[in-house]
Amino acid sequence: MSEVLDAARRAKTAAAALAPLTRAKKDAALLAMADALVAEEQVILAANAEDVAAGRAAGMSEAMLDRLALNPARVRAMADGLRHVATLPDPVGEVVRGSSLPNGLEMRQVRVPLGVVGIVYEARPNVTADAAGLCVKSGNAVLLRGSASAYRSNTAIVDVLATAAVELPPNTVQLVPGTDRSSVEELMKARGLVDVLIPRGGAGLIQSVVTGSQVPVIETGVGNCTVYVDASADLEKAVAIIIDAKTTRPSVCNAAETLLVHAQVADTLLPLAVKALKDKGVTLHTDARASSYDATSVPVSDEDWAAEYLSLDLAVGVVDSLDEAVAHIRRWGSGHTEAIVTRDVDEARRFVKGLDSAAVMVNASTRFTDGGEFGFGAEIGISTQKLHARGPMGLSELTSTTYVVTGDGHVRG
Amino acid sequence: MSEVLDAARRAKTAAAALAPLTRAKKDAALLAMADALVAEEQVILAANAEDVAAGRAAGMSEAMLDRLALNPARVRAMADGLRHVATLPDPVGEVVRGSSLPNGLEMRQVRVPLGVVGIVYEARPNVTADAAGLCVKSGNAVLLRGSASAYRSNTAIVDVLATAAVELPPNTVQLVPGTDRSSVEELMKARGLVDVLIPRGGAGLIQSVVTGSQVPVIETGVGNCTVYVDASADLEKAVAIIIDAKTTRPSVCNAAETLLVHAQVADTLLPLAVKALKDKGVTLHTDARASSYDATSVPVSDEDWAAEYLSLDLAVGVVDSLDEAVAHIRRWGSGHTEAIVTRDVDEARRFVKGLDSAAVMVNASTRFTDGGEFGFGAEIGISTQKLHARGPMGLSELTSTTYVVTGDGHVRG
Repeated sequence: MSEVLDAARRAKTAAAALAPLTRAKKDAALLAMADALVAEEQVILAANAEDVAAGRAAGMSEAMLDRLALNPARVRAMADGLRHVATLPDPVGEVVRGSSLPNGLEMRQVRVPLGVVGIVYEARPNVTADAAGLCVKSGNAVLLRGSASAYRSNTAIVDVLATAAVELPPNTVQLVPGTDRSSVEELMKARGLVDVLIPRGGAGLIQSVVTGSQVPVIETGVGNCTVYVDASADLEKAVAIIIDAKTTRPSVCNAAETLLVHAQVADTLLPLAVKALKDKGVTLHTDARASSYDATSVPVSDEDWAAEYLSLDLAVGVVDSLDEAVAHIRRWGSGHTEAIVTRDVDEARRFVKGLDSAAVMVNASTRFTDGGEFGFGAEIGISTQKLHARGPMGLSELTSTTYVVTGDGHVRG
Repeated sequence: MSEVLDAARRAKTAAAALAPLTRAKKDAALLAMADALVAEEQVILAANAEDVAAGRAAGMSEAMLDRLALNPARVRAMADGLRHVATLPDPVGEVVRGSSLPNGLEMRQVRVPLGVVGIVYEARPNVTADAAGLCVKSGNAVLLRGSASAYRSNTAIVDVLATAAVELPPNTVQLVPGTDRSSVEELMKARGLVDVLIPRGGAGLIQSVVTGSQVPVIETGVGNCTVYVDASADLEKAVAIIIDAKTTRPSVCNAAETLLVHAQVADTLLPLAVKALKDKGVTLHTDARASSYDATSVPVSDEDWAAEYLSLDLAVGVVDSLDEAVAHIRRWGSGHTEAIVTRDVDEARRFVKGLDSAAVMVNASTRFTDGGEFGFGAEIGISTQKLHARGPMGLSELTSTTYVVTGDGHVRG
């Protein structure tokens, strides 16, 4: 019998007991979990130090080591995250729609937990506490499958959380046993035990889960976002949005990777934008027309148009129309977030209607696609698929619904 | 190059042009499609007669031949279905939520079409027109993959619909070329071209699509529904609900397949229920305690508890508590619809909270789980999965959403 499937079976049992729990009990558990993280900080840091030492010995890059490393401030941030989730409304029990039917039946559609949520993620151990908190609040049992390099840290964190969560059914929060690829494979086959898998990490991880899983998947993350500067754009605002979207945090999925500029404003906008981007250290990958504004730029290739750089690189092109920009984005974009800078209401409307992305910004930076910015209070990831959830996912997106229909002996006949 | 993938590519192109279409244009197309079905009735009936003759020659059962056969009344019913869909509100453009964010950004979540919907279905050619109508109304291009036995009928119907739909982009409605298994396989691999696959038909078809598809799937249909008669039940209402749930249309997914009776009312309810059921020709599969009320019943097996009979058979058991009933349903049910008959408010509440089904009826027949009964105006199927849609799926369930965020040069910094 597989250890992973055993864990999934325990999770399914936990989910049944967790679903009807009151918000008060779930919040009490979240606060106890937060307190325990701080109280057991030394245990967690010791385990993490072993992971970091092993990572360093294995030649892990400094950037990766930084993502892996915990310190007292980061442990406290995890605890604060759990406390914050406790303050959010409980999505479970929310009535999504309801009506009295013509025959007198009272019908209501009510949010219920999904059941068992599997999260497959990389590096950062803080995801362990964040994901556990969101799942607990939304009434879901969670199977956490972190990376092998953080296994000791994750084991310590889950141990602390599970021990503290005395208000919750046993096995509500579990780390998936094992660190090799086969544990992910087993999760992907656990249809009937696991209700949804959410991969969080690099494109390779996400693709392998999305294409290989028999369990339903929510695809997250890949963001090849485009800023389009229209003929009527306010140039100052355009430059500010370009700089914000590209440079404030290039490693995240809502950062811009492509800039398209209407030919009518190329002469005025591009010199300003190129200078501002180069001042920030951005390398431009330009098409033939854009290249004339930056002597040091490199020629753009199809790989560039398709790339999620996650670095200070930007593909830049000049287009003759909004339709050309839309067609470009439909061809090369990842359907995450696009932005238009324009003063023309009709063009803004055409841009919004012409695209097929999770979010479209009008005169605002692509960086605003974020659960926190949208006021969801928390975020389990950003979905780039169309089913179930699209865009930033908060607590509601971790629920399903049930129709509850009450009658008085009603028969259909 | 595969013909199926070619069709999917054409559908994707159609979907981009279809998404921004106004309701007026879509409704005009639906009405034209309805008129054309009636006008071209002879062409459709001639093609159908060939399918029926081929089916009869191949030894198809009379029941299957009846499902396959069209006549003028059935063609008119298809046309009326399209006209009815034209009267329904357009789900596209509906604002699901929206707010002004603290920084002044105006955020709204708007329904948009899914894109390309693939429907894999069996026998009945009327599904061809019904599914096409719902997809057109919700702004989706549709790839219809009907059964081989109805291929001539479906070809004729799609030909008529596509020719009539001059208001719509070319290839909005397409029949998937080919009738062998490989065309389904290709649809299941068409990730990036097809946005969702909806299998409608027997459990075998659904399972093979659900477990094999790389395209997201909405699982429909299997209904092993239970009626539980609680200790406090009104016995007359209980019998009426049992008879309605089991006998009014035994071949559909919301028909009851299991009856559980609280031990306290077994002596009073079961004699009444058994007589009423046997009067309707129902065969009872009873556990040891229930068997004493029906000398002609057959012993129930685990296969019976798990079965979706779709026939005049019913598994019957006596339980000592509501909790035992809930545990039984969690173990053996398919998560479609369960009903409780009770006069006790607390027990009704515990039953609803204890289950994990798409619909729970309190003092009403399981047969009410239906898009028409719920007031959705139309139904593409009944989802038994938890992601995206659960329970009857109307037009809204054929949509995704996009966040549209409008600012005034907003940057996140």
